[in-house]
Formats: sequence, C-alpha cells, structure tokens
Amino acid sequence: MMKHVLGAKCIVCGKEWEAEPSITVCPSCGGLLDIQYDYAEIRKEVDHKVMAQRQEQSMWRYMEYLPVLSKGERPKLRVGWSPFYKADRLAETLGIRELYIKDDGVNPTASLKDRASAMAVVKAEEAGAETIACSSTGNAASSLAGNAAAAGFPTYIFVPSRAPRGKVSQLMIFGAHVVSVKSTYEDTFKLSEQAIEKFGWYNRNAAINPFLMEGKKTVALEIAEQLGWKMTDYVALSVGDGCTIAGVWKGFKDLYETGMIDRLPRLISVQAEGCCPLNRAIAQNRPWEPMEENTLADSIAVGVPRNAEKALRAIRESKGVVVNVSDQEILDAAKLLGRTCGVFGEPAGVTGTAGVKKALETGLISENSSVVSIVTGNGLKDTPNAMKAAGEPVAIDPEMNQLLQVMDRL
Amino acid sequence: MMKHVLGAKCIVCGKEWEAEPSITVCPSCGGLLDIQYDYAEIRKEVDHKVMAQRQEQSMWRYMEYLPVLSKGERPKLRVGWSPFYKADRLAETLGIRELYIKDDGVNPTASLKDRASAMAVVKAEEAGAETIACSSTGNAASSLAGNAAAAGFPTYIFVPSRAPRGKVSQLMIFGAHVVSVKSTYEDTFKLSEQAIEKFGWYNRNAAINPFLMEGKKTVALEIAEQLGWKMTDYVALSVGDGCTIAGVWKGFKDLYETGMIDRLPRLISVQAEGCCPLNRAIAQNRPWEPMEENTLADSIAVGVPRNAEKALRAIRESKGVVVNVSDQEILDAAKLLGRTCGVFGEPAGVTGTAGVKKALETGLISENSSVVSIVTGNGLKDTPNAMKAAGEPVAIDPEMNQLLQVMDRL
Repeated sequence: MMKHVLGAKCIVCGKEWEAEPSITVCPSCGGLLDIQYDYAEIRKEVDHKVMAQRQEQSMWRYMEYLPVLSKGERPKLRVGWSPFYKADRLAETLGIRELYIKDDGVNPTASLKDRASAMAVVKAEEAGAETIACSSTGNAASSLAGNAAAAGFPTYIFVPSRAPRGKVSQLMIFGAHVVSVKSTYEDTFKLSEQAIEKFGWYNRNAAINPFLMEGKKTVALEIAEQLGWKMTDYVALSVGDGCTIAGVWKGFKDLYETGMIDRLPRLISVQAEGCCPLNRAIAQNRPWEPMEENTLADSIAVGVPRNAEKALRAIRESKGVVVNVSDQEILDAAKLLGRTCGVFGEPAGVTGTAGVKKALETGLISENSSVVSIVTGNGLKDTPNAMKAAGEPVAIDPEMNQLLQVMDRL
Repeated sequence: MMKHVLGAKCIVCGKEWEAEPSITVCPSCGGLLDIQYDYAEIRKEVDHKVMAQRQEQSMWRYMEYLPVLSKGERPKLRVGWSPFYKADRLAETLGIRELYIKDDGVNPTASLKDRASAMAVVKAEEAGAETIACSSTGNAASSLAGNAAAAGFPTYIFVPSRAPRGKVSQLMIFGAHVVSVKSTYEDTFKLSEQAIEKFGWYNRNAAINPFLMEGKKTVALEIAEQLGWKMTDYVALSVGDGCTIAGVWKGFKDLYETGMIDRLPRLISVQAEGCCPLNRAIAQNRPWEPMEENTLADSIAVGVPRNAEKALRAIRESKGVVVNVSDQEILDAAKLLGRTCGVFGEPAGVTGTAGVKKALETGLISENSSVVSIVTGNGLKDTPNAMKAAGEPVAIDPEMNQLLQVMDRL
C-alpha cells in the first residue's frame, strides 16, 4: 500500500492492522492507533544530502515519512515549511543561551492545525469520502474548513460556542456547515462523534484518526531540518488535546530512528494553570483526571484531552518538563514575542514561550540550554485577547500639539 | 553603490539623483522618484535556469532586481514567496478560462505590505536610522511594526482611528508607538509627514520613499516565476494609495526589460465605488480629483491617493482595465474565494477578485482570458466584515435532536 507504512498498531492491546484510509481506533479494543513505518527502507532513500536538494517547500517535502503515496488529485493549500527564526533578542531578554521560534501561525489558515487538516483531506480522498467532519476548539475547525474548501469537500464542523470570532469567521467564509455547541469542548466532541457515526462522514477528529498526528509531526521534521539536523536540548509547546505534542514527538522519533538526527530533544509541555490535566498527571505521577476549562487560551482549554495516552507517553519518553502558566503570563508572552521577534501569536500560540520563561525562572531548565518554542497559531485569530495584553492606542485629533502631548506619554 | 542601480529619476522633471538610502522625493521639484536599473547588467546574471536553481524562498530571492547589496545585518521576518494557486473551481464559477490566486495574506504580518516594510527596514539600517515612522490605513502600519520589531527598530505609526481592530492589535503587540488619528487617511498622512520632518525619523510612507515600491514589486516577480515565466493576459488587484499597482507594474517591466518574460500583462485596477479617484480619472481621461472615503474596504479607502501619478501611468502603460465594485460585491467575493479556494481575504484583499467577476459580467474582459488575482491581505484582519459577508453560525445545545433540526436548515 503506502510505500513505507507497515500498518497501524494499537497503543493499548498492541494488535496490528492494515492502515486503511478510513481506519480510526483499534477494531479489537478501541484503543488509539499508531502508524508504523519501515525505518530501514526510509533510511535507504533519505539522508541530509537528499533533503538539501529537494525543491518542495511544504509539509509534503517529507513524503518518505508520510502515510500517503501521493498528495492526491484535488487542489490543495500550501501548508507547512513555516518560518523559523533564531530569536537572539528574546533569548537575551529571557536569559537563555539559544532560542528559536517556529512560527506556525504563518500557514494558510494561520495555525499548525493546517498540517493535520491537509492530511485529513488527502486521506478522505483516498477513502472515497464525500463529506468531512470534526469537532474542535477552533483551529482544527477553521483549518479543516479551509483545506476542505480548496479541495471541494463539504464539511460539518462542531465548535464550542466560546470559540473566538476570528476562528468562527474563517469557518463561515470557507462555507463550512458550522454547529456551534453551547457547552464544553467535551460535549462538543461527543456530539460530533455521534453525528459522524450516524451520517458516515470522514472523521477528522485528531485523536481518533491516526493519520492526523502524521500530518502534525511534519512541524518536527521541519524544525530538525531548519536547525541543520542539530537538535536543541528542548522543544517547547502548548498542550491541549495532546495530539500536537504527540505528533511532534513522533516526528523526532521517526528522524532519530532513520539516522537523520543523533539525539532527541526533551519536550517542554506547557499548559494553562486553569486547565492542566496532562501536566498534573505527569507532575503527580498518577493517571490523568478531567479538569475545568478555565483559561483564556481557548485552543488549549481542554478539560478532557482526547489524546491523553499518546501525549503522556511522549512527555515521559522524552524525559520532558511540565510547566503551567497563568493567563497573565500568557498575555505577557504575547507582548514579549511581538516586541522582540515581530511574531504575533494567539494565546495558546504563545503559551509555549510563556512556559520557557517560567521554566527558566523556576530553574526547571538551565540558562545554558538551547530551546525551540513553537508558536502554534496566529494572534489575529483572537484580537480581543491581544488588546487585553497590549492595551489600546491613544487617539488624537490631527494636530501637532496633541501629538507632542501624546509623545511625552508614549 | 548598489550593484545594478543607476540612480533615482524624478517622474516629473526627469532629473536623476544618486539613490541614497534616505532619499525621498526629488530634491529639485518635489516629484516622486523611480529607481533605475542597468537592465543589460541584470540580463548577464539572471535567466530562467539561474532562478530555478535558487534556494532562497522569500522576496530576497530576486537580489539582482533589488536596490540593496545585502539583506542587512539585523534579524528579519521571512517575507514573500507567498502561495500561488490555480483556481479552477473559481474559474468555472466565474466563467473564465484560466484564473490564478496569489495569496499575499500568507505573509508574516498577513499582508502584501510586508514586502515594502521589509525593504524599509533594510534601507533604514543602511541609512543609519534610529527610528522608523509611517502613516497607513492599517496594513503598512502593522507590517512596519512587525518587521521593525524583528529588527529591533522603534517605530512611530499613524493610523486613522477607523482602522480595524485586527490591524490595531498587531500594532500594539509589536510594541509600536501608535498614534490613532480621529480623521481621514489624508489628515493622518499629513500629520505623519510633519512629525517625520520634525523628528528626523526614517520615512516609510510608501509613496514618498522610492525604495518601497521596489519591495512591493517582488510580488510581480514571484507571480511571473510561479507561472513558469509565461504571463497571463491580465493581473487584477485592488487599488488605494496607488503604490502597490505601481510596484506590480514596475516588477513586470523589470522582468520584460531583462528578457525574463516575453509579454506584459494588462492590469485590472479595482477600486470601491465609494472611493475610486484613480479609476475615475482613467475612465473619464482627465486629472484625478479627491473623493470621499466611502467603503468598508478600509485598506483602499483612500480619497487622496499619495501615489496617483505612478499608479495612473502604470494602468495606462499596461493598457489596463478599470472596474469599480460595490461593498456588497466585495463581501460576495470574500465568500466566493473562501468557498472555492480556501482563501480568506480582507475586504480590500478580495476586491481584485470582485473586479474580475464584474469585468467578466460587463464584458470588459473576455471569458477566454487568463488572469492572476492578487489577494493583498488576510481576512483575519477584519473579522466583523467577514461575519457580515458570511453570517453567523447556528448555536445549539449538545443534543442530537437539535442537531437534526439544524441540519435540515443548513
């Protein structure tokens, strides 16, 4: 089937299945599945030199590592190969030796979730699906809406009614059938699962569909290549549902197993103090339990993470660090990234950086470290919180004397 | 000085000057300046094969065509090389043979203006400036704020108080000193010019600073290359101040003069019915006159275009077509682009596409044409107008029976 894919293996019972494009959870026990690759075969085809000569500048640059044979026939958005910056001024401000920012807000629908949605659209095409559906706190939704619109798929999309206007406006413009659910993300997710089963839509719920993590992992492949294949000590990112951190870890492991990097980074898992079920489970070394969704960082306000097992496994395997940050620390990080890097992230987008700051302040990581911080979504998706972070401008009449007064204050 | 730059020539009196990094208007008559190149020298260094082998995927890919010797020492955002899509479904909907979308909303601060601001920052560095200033309807402002923040320059930025929240939130996050002027764009511009003179800031007002058009022209260079150097019949874009259309034309002319393309496209200049001083001048073949700024497309609500001469010259030289569209046609185009292409543009960003539709409907261009339509800014910058275009989602409780009722209506 797909060139280097061996199959889909259940992370609970260990059974292996053929990686059919419409497979979701383990047919035997209901556990989540992992896509397995023949690393020896990949190794034969890919090395640093091969990658350096490659022209494709998108997530599809890494075809040998992806569970598809082609990008599909339908038109698609250009997802991935997002900007990567060495952030020396921010590093100096935070007091850390080496810091990089991966700005995944510069994607067609302005978040990292485009990577999973682009994959979902290709797999839906392979599965012969007619309609794609998902539930999401917002970014998976708008990215599915955009990527599916480009490919000509209708979508049904379930979001909690708290989703920020920026994300909702994207859904509406992209012509998705939007169902806004007046309840938690958990209830939204459950309703979407019922409807998907009832109507036979292609399922783009990232935890349930094992291929989507394979799309998300491309951010890790890019980071490694943009670092010249020399990994940093840490990679920091915000964590909600758990799919992204699990995908990032899968990407680094795939590279390590195929000899493309010679060491694995430690993950810094950053959650909001008001909603940190995964970090709490790690810190207290016990099973995770649901929490309230009490943070302004809507994308990671996930009280019942749908991909807890894979996320916890990723953090533990990487000897990861867990950090919880307050909403105020998130808003402060938004300003800090904007002022020192010219990068504008949404609250959950800058939460990784807030975590790096806090991990340094609390001594969890040393100032002699090197870190990549992933900005997972664009600040334009949530301008009210940006204004809350940075304040309002001063308004004057077009008079020089008023300007002079204002300049004294600025 | 700069490798292929001959000088800066006044478009009014024809005098030629050395292209100093801080030059603005003609020292002799106050006319606007054009940067001149030695095309024969560029021709010796660049051809299709040379370009095909180039690795740089940003606006700096085209160094031979730019008025700089290097990108400067300071850190910078990755601007340009934005996505280019063949839009077959939209073409079919509009009834046109061949249509392409250049999505310049996928830029670090989410608009085409990043190209000019990136150039401004490099020239400010060359000029030894300490502070950069501009006035703008919004996008030039936020792009200057972001690009300058990345490079460590403080900025003073003047915007009319009507600027949408998305753009204002960018300014505030990037740490610009923002002056919100309770008046028209014209008054805002004038106040900025007074202040720039008084305080000696580096001037990033696009009409006044001849280098900025050279940054903007890179969108044309990319379009030509992304078309495989085979130009379409037309290139459509929205027009406000006039700098962008003038820059686009300059880019195509530079390519033509150096043998990289063998024909020039005709420009489709699209303005809002409520604010179309340049198109009116062309249509009535008489000098332009100020108009009110009566459109929801804030970026092109420019009653007194600062770059009228160059814009009018560009439209005329290209045997261009002028089209004015209503605000409703702009909102409809936003939905159309979203639904058929997965591209989300701000009102002025989709105005070019609205113009293509209208030009087809009114027979100004033939359905046998090929057209590139440039989306100049991201829809996330102005979500209220997106919601106006596309409507509100339906909100329900998390109950299957409510979902079924909603689905009947969707």
